[in-house]
Amino acid sequence: MFSFDLSAIATRLESLEETIIFRLIDRVQLGRNLAVYEPNRFPLSGTESTLLNHMLRFHESTHAMLGRYVVAEERPFFSDLPIPAEGMAGDRDVGLQICDFNQINLTASIRLAYTELLDRITVGNDGEYGTTAETDIASLQAIARRIHFGSFYVAEAKFRGNPDHYTELIRAKDEQALMRLLTRQEVEDRIIIRIREKCASIQAISNPLIRKQIDPDQVAQFYFATIIPLTKVGEITYLLNRTLP
Amino acid sequence: MFSFDLSAIATRLESLEETIIFRLIDRVQLGRNLAVYEPNRFPLSGTESTLLNHMLRFHESTHAMLGRYVVAEERPFFSDLPIPAEGMAGDRDVGLQICDFNQINLTASIRLAYTELLDRITVGNDGEYGTTAETDIASLQAIARRIHFGSFYVAEAKFRGNPDHYTELIRAKDEQALMRLLTRQEVEDRIIIRIREKCASIQAISNPLIRKQIDPDQVAQFYFATIIPLTKVGEITYLLNRTLP
Repeated sequence: MFSFDLSAIATRLESLEETIIFRLIDRVQLGRNLAVYEPNRFPLSGTESTLLNHMLRFHESTHAMLGRYVVAEERPFFSDLPIPAEGMAGDRDVGLQICDFNQINLTASIRLAYTELLDRITVGNDGEYGTTAETDIASLQAIARRIHFGSFYVAEAKFRGNPDHYTELIRAKDEQALMRLLTRQEVEDRIIIRIREKCASIQAISNPLIRKQIDPDQVAQFYFATIIPLTKVGEITYLLNRTLP
Repeated sequence: MFSFDLSAIATRLESLEETIIFRLIDRVQLGRNLAVYEPNRFPLSGTESTLLNHMLRFHESTHAMLGRYVVAEERPFFSDLPIPAEGMAGDRDVGLQICDFNQINLTASIRLAYTELLDRITVGNDGEYGTTAETDIASLQAIARRIHFGSFYVAEAKFRGNPDHYTELIRAKDEQALMRLLTRQEVEDRIIIRIREKCASIQAISNPLIRKQIDPDQVAQFYFATIIPLTKVGEITYLLNRTLP
């Protein structure tokens, strides 16, 4: 059983930041490479028409078999995945109060926002299509893990800290009041400052003549405009679907 | 046609260092997870008996179709891969003087040394098997790219800088003399110092209570004992197989 202590949850969220930053830095070493996202651009086996989808589907099918999507924060981009192999589902009752984790699945919004981010931070075509697709998969998953972990665990922790008030707002389906109650502006501001600092610090030793750099403001802005807001959308969706006492 | 300027080649090699460090830092966040490398541990489709091989084979098969292994420095870990799809092989004559790039393929040694590195830098079992395999694939490929790029391009550049002497030693198959002629100790020392600094600097902003850290000495030692020596083995293999004037 998870402790649902907000500071432990914040710690876990913080530990996911470096992974997101590393993967975005890897991604900007590559071109925009639109061919990766074009339907029928490559002669692929299976049902997928874009290279990214082809590789992402194999990836998720393999991981589904291993039981990855039994974990709340691991929400898949595809919905028609195989069930876990025998013995791979594990015991994952962590104390979340929701009947189906996939009621909170923000992957479509994540993919859209990530595509728009690529338009801002990458340019040109270098032919590195396979590497581009695999770097995208790694980035998308790191971002999705952060957003979904926050959606489930922050929402449940906040509910447990103030069950009567949350229950009342959930029963009234008052999304605006829930949003106000969930929001801690000073925490959000601190995250964005920390992201900018981490991004600059991680790149400080790299030779900019040799390595492409990602503008720390772009990553901070992505947290501000996508990661944090989508996490709050996920939190509200969780609460509205939560089993009430 | 590539310029075969040694400082341009050193620049490219340097740009690959951060990618290796990022991926090893990602890897130490995970457990040793021996199940990933155990034959018949999971019910996998296809011919591979370990999870890492299953995922690596899909990966390399997809990338082979896209033409990745037409590039000298991209040497695959598997040998029985599909040929590139029509139009995907490209024109990759970069001026290397060797009939088959796969005459230099150090992937077996790389895999062995990487496995021993994992024994030193990771511990325990956290059940994150799919993520472990994909992080291994990313690490192995980043390391292999560095070693093979050096093997081909450094060797060819050095040959071009001193063709008469190299031709004489190649005809005599004098590997020891070739090793002496190739080695620039002060360059190697500088690389190892730089790796240690980069590794420490990249992790400087991370909270060690939250993120596992990799000992910069471990990465520096891996460069010293594996990456640099294997690159030189590759350079000598290239030279002994080089077309002579």
